[in-house]
Amino acid sequence: MESNREIAMIRRMAGNFARHPTQVNDLMEADAEIIPFHGEYLVVKTDCIHEEIQLQLYTDPYLIGWMSVIAPVSDIAAVGATPIGVLLSVLLPNNSGENWEKEFQRGIKDACSECEIFVLGGDTSFASMVSISTTAVAGIKSGNPLMRSGLKPGDRLYTTSRLGVGNAFAYACFFDKSLEVSFRPMARLHESKTIRKYANACIDTSDGLFPALSVLSEINQVGICIDTPLIQLLSEEAIFVHHQAEVQDWILLAGPHGEYELLFTIPEQYERAFLENCHTDQWTPVYLGQIIEEPHLSFQIESVPVKCHPAIIANLYVEAEGNIAYYFELLMQQHTRWTTPT
Amino acid sequence: MESNREIAMIRRMAGNFARHPTQVNDLMEADAEIIPFHGEYLVVKTDCIHEEIQLQLYTDPYLIGWMSVIAPVSDIAAVGATPIGVLLSVLLPNNSGENWEKEFQRGIKDACSECEIFVLGGDTSFASMVSISTTAVAGIKSGNPLMRSGLKPGDRLYTTSRLGVGNAFAYACFFDKSLEVSFRPMARLHESKTIRKYANACIDTSDGLFPALSVLSEINQVGICIDTPLIQLLSEEAIFVHHQAEVQDWILLAGPHGEYELLFTIPEQYERAFLENCHTDQWTPVYLGQIIEEPHLSFQIESVPVKCHPAIIANLYVEAEGNIAYYFELLMQQHTRWTTPT
Repeated sequence: MESNREIAMIRRMAGNFARHPTQVNDLMEADAEIIPFHGEYLVVKTDCIHEEIQLQLYTDPYLIGWMSVIAPVSDIAAVGATPIGVLLSVLLPNNSGENWEKEFQRGIKDACSECEIFVLGGDTSFASMVSISTTAVAGIKSGNPLMRSGLKPGDRLYTTSRLGVGNAFAYACFFDKSLEVSFRPMARLHESKTIRKYANACIDTSDGLFPALSVLSEINQVGICIDTPLIQLLSEEAIFVHHQAEVQDWILLAGPHGEYELLFTIPEQYERAFLENCHTDQWTPVYLGQIIEEPHLSFQIESVPVKCHPAIIANLYVEAEGNIAYYFELLMQQHTRWTTPT
Repeated sequence: MESNREIAMIRRMAGNFARHPTQVNDLMEADAEIIPFHGEYLVVKTDCIHEEIQLQLYTDPYLIGWMSVIAPVSDIAAVGATPIGVLLSVLLPNNSGENWEKEFQRGIKDACSECEIFVLGGDTSFASMVSISTTAVAGIKSGNPLMRSGLKPGDRLYTTSRLGVGNAFAYACFFDKSLEVSFRPMARLHESKTIRKYANACIDTSDGLFPALSVLSEINQVGICIDTPLIQLLSEEAIFVHHQAEVQDWILLAGPHGEYELLFTIPEQYERAFLENCHTDQWTPVYLGQIIEEPHLSFQIESVPVKCHPAIIANLYVEAEGNIAYYFELLMQQHTRWTTPT
């Protein structure tokens, strides 16, 4: 069975180190690191904004600042913790200019204020290109953290909102700059408070929906059946790109530039209470499908049923080795394979 | 009054952000960030190993791994906290090779085991060059953290060991590769436990002795009188370079590639008890001099008394803008100015 290559890479880089004896989560088992601390939980997460800058997907300094904060804080939301602040390690060219710095700082400031957190510290070095590593610090005062593990066949799969804006934004940037797609994701901290009362597993969609599904599937050794038509899962911006540029719905959910929503599972017996609580908390979750025993992923493309290994879609990006045009070609080839009658 | 330019840069980059309302330390006021957390203190610090790699001062992957851990943990020691672990954000070339990765991981592993801590998590991205941002996570169960602020005229100034190995290593690397200088600093966690019982201020010498003195002076608005002959402050490796290459003693304490010792002040009335406790704890502090009211730095070069602004030496490196040969020239010019009779 072919496994998720991104997970394999992480295991190669990090699997060598001894784990902290009381760390709650195993490698890859949660979106953030969870450590018992003075009788409660300390939650920390380091995330790097680099590839997006290198590929020139992020060029706006405000967006770079914003994402430097949102990316790790979204992981904090996925484990159900309350963030305190961030530490930023910033690499930037010596000549980036006052305006660049100001806009970058404004993005950080706005994202912190949106998440009600603070910049706790940081480090700045001069380098040939911009790269930001951020560590978010958070706590859990009571109750247990949410992890990627813990779901079971029969569980119902939801997200915090409709999906695809990240990939729609990337498509516009790489293939058709005339398409106007705005991208400013939130960390779903408010929704996380409802979710942690009912969910048995959670991951954020920072790497896109299908890659997140692949991780859930591999960690829990289960399959996933998406029974909602994919078109109904697409956000407004994704539908716009789907129509304007004729990009397939599933491809807008496949790319690795995700939307930072939470993807989570609710045991069937809690589903009703969960939905009522969402209503009280004034947000509407999006139903995707359910967890199944057979370790495959199933969904429909234009009413053609697809049943595949859950890692196949995620691995296409790894296979493309950062070549975006080739990646898109691989997606199209996969599309043809799935939709051509044999 | 000319102030430390490195501090000015940090204020420009970070002074814009609101501080966390309960964060104990102000900007630049401590080696690490200190936040009350669930009734105790959480201490975190982010540090980046980049410039040392860019300048090819660090080329050995083992050393890069080792320093990625030691650099932020040394700051943890400086505030008197107990480290738990580190999160590593690693940028490295796709083609760095299996052996490079193995040696890098071995360096991280050995440093973690030396500090009795664990790798808690991390992130890996592929980039054109190596750069490591590490966040150390630590706690203080009882008592107060040590900060850079809090010292007073009359206090006695000490370090955990003799100094200069970092600059000796850098001199050998940049100017004379025939000189064999080994560099593998420790985080002074053991010594920190004695120090925090008596000291009223502490900073690590990761940026070299004179730059650290400049920070202590500026933060506390005091001066420093070094009354120990500088030659007596030099470590074995520094003395070797001093003799072999005729590098001035003060220059080996001036450069920004420090030795990760702790530099701290003991109020006079506790000095005796402190020294006795060091003896019990089996280590020997090195006496440098004392804190004075007048905001200048004084020491002797070959029995010529020098009295200067505390930031002058630190600012030479900033002035050189990363040009090492020019930096050395600036140091030599300064030496001539100080030692030529007028």
